Amino acid sequence: MTSVPLGPGGEFDRVRAIAAALGSDARGLGDDCAVLPGDRESLVLSTDLSVEGVHFRRDWLSLEEIGWRAAASALSDLASAGAECTGLLAAVTVPGDASESDLVALMKGVGAAARHAGGAVLGGDLSRAPAWSVAVTVVGRAARPVGRAGARAGDTLWVTGALGGARLALEAWTAGREPGRRARAAFAHPLPRIAAGRWLAAHGATAMIDLSDGLGADAAHVAAASGTRLEIDLDRVPLAPGAPDASGGEDYELLAALPPVFGEADAAACAAECGVTLTRIGRVVAGAGLTVTRNGESVQLHGFDHFA
Amino acid sequence: MTSVPLGPGGEFDRVRAIAAALGSDARGLGDDCAVLPGDRESLVLSTDLSVEGVHFRRDWLSLEEIGWRAAASALSDLASAGAECTGLLAAVTVPGDASESDLVALMKGVGAAARHAGGAVLGGDLSRAPAWSVAVTVVGRAARPVGRAGARAGDTLWVTGALGGARLALEAWTAGREPGRRARAAFAHPLPRIAAGRWLAAHGATAMIDLSDGLGADAAHVAAASGTRLEIDLDRVPLAPGAPDASGGEDYELLAALPPVFGEADAAACAAECGVTLTRIGRVVAGAGLTVTRNGESVQLHGFDHFA
Repeated sequence: MTSVPLGPGGEFDRVRAIAAALGSDARGLGDDCAVLPGDRESLVLSTDLSVEGVHFRRDWLSLEEIGWRAAASALSDLASAGAECTGLLAAVTVPGDASESDLVALMKGVGAAARHAGGAVLGGDLSRAPAWSVAVTVVGRAARPVGRAGARAGDTLWVTGALGGARLALEAWTAGREPGRRARAAFAHPLPRIAAGRWLAAHGATAMIDLSDGLGADAAHVAAASGTRLEIDLDRVPLAPGAPDASGGEDYELLAALPPVFGEADAAACAAECGVTLTRIGRVVAGAGLTVTRNGESVQLHGFDHFA
Repeated sequence: MTSVPLGPGGEFDRVRAIAAALGSDARGLGDDCAVLPGDRESLVLSTDLSVEGVHFRRDWLSLEEIGWRAAASALSDLASAGAECTGLLAAVTVPGDASESDLVALMKGVGAAARHAGGAVLGGDLSRAPAWSVAVTVVGRAARPVGRAGARAGDTLWVTGALGGARLALEAWTAGREPGRRARAAFAHPLPRIAAGRWLAAHGATAMIDLSDGLGADAAHVAAASGTRLEIDLDRVPLAPGAPDASGGEDYELLAALPPVFGEADAAACAAECGVTLTRIGRVVAGAGLTVTRNGESVQLHGFDHFA
């Protein structure tokens, strides 16, 4: 078995069971991306599923937004590897009552996200099915792909952008309200941090992950994969306007471990060059697992499980 | 728009509409595989969807067979490009009442097909959904990838193996009967023709396609992409035992156009080296479209449309 150790959670138990059953028929399961080494650079691949009723609802988002969000969540995995985007393939299931223009609208969103990331739609497949779903496979290249497993004691932990916006939108919809404009955009139109991921990889990032499962779950993955302990100070975590805390997932920001020499001046340079803030929220220490504190007291962070 | 011209059919109308709407956000849509040129060899990628109730039924196949078949249908696209297999990624949707062991069984089938093709499972994603579905993205490499667009007047047309077995199984199940052993295997356990595809590419194949949509539909794709006319003599098409004709799709054999110098001795060499028969069934001539004859009379071949 060659899978990367994962943090706790029902969805990750399933990945562990699959990796154990497949043995040598599987390679590297559990990281955000598959990495195929090449002469000058590695090929980086990842697949991400978005399913109606699980990841989105038709009455929340337009089909173009559904397509954008599905592609952006997959492209975010390339960002976490520090890879540039070559393109993507999209496998789309379409309900029987959908029209050709519905399908074209969804694929326009997929195509716009691919272009925004510097790539194009390279292929795909279509089928009817009971519900809309989009499986996006992204293809990228990186001279030095960054995974989850390289964080070392002494590194500091940084996060791009602000967290909690997507959850704020989800909570509004669930309560029957229309979310505010910015929270809605955080959920409907997330921006994969491709430029920041490449910048951080070039500036020594030892581990990166995109915050899809939530800060707590994703930090636990990095700790498990790296064989270190992560300490996060919630008082430092930048929150989206109106967000009560950093719980919930699907913000698609990056969590990066950076070596001790990386400082605030470097973070300012990243912000200037990549157009997204970079905030120090904790550190990597010897040990195992994750400690999250608020006002100096230990707290639990809740994540997001697509099987829950 | 840079898509490859497709033959007639509702599913292909949708691909044409998407390619037209995406413009430069899409590249090369319509061929079996996306091709990304490299220094020494090209990267070859393809995505294939298998959906419960559309491509398979749970009471027909075991979950391991469903996984094998989903992966084999995608791997067959690598075969048609003459590519070797590096590996695959699988995005799987799982109904709420399925167990972890159900999911593991399906993934064992996916993993076995990847190993059979010379690759491994490199990654994937999971989500619950109303129905089982498997979106498999295959990754391969080829020194000279073969597409659909290179057939030239004067080429001869060849097919691997025998056709109609998968349809025979489908007809039995639809009529409430259990299919015969060989027909069942043709549907449940198709063998992607990776070795034959590589052999044919190395021996000058000008165009190849795998027979997923059916001989008629797939030959029409080659004709449209190549800007030539294809003539197929049904009396020459090798049929699976018990199959009344070569209608229907999903046999996952290869249709190849080969230059005039390619003859029966070459076909015998291919059979000896790759373990699958190769039969001449027609030729490529100047013009457009497809002519299919039986006993010298023109006939129609019915294909398979996953939106029908």
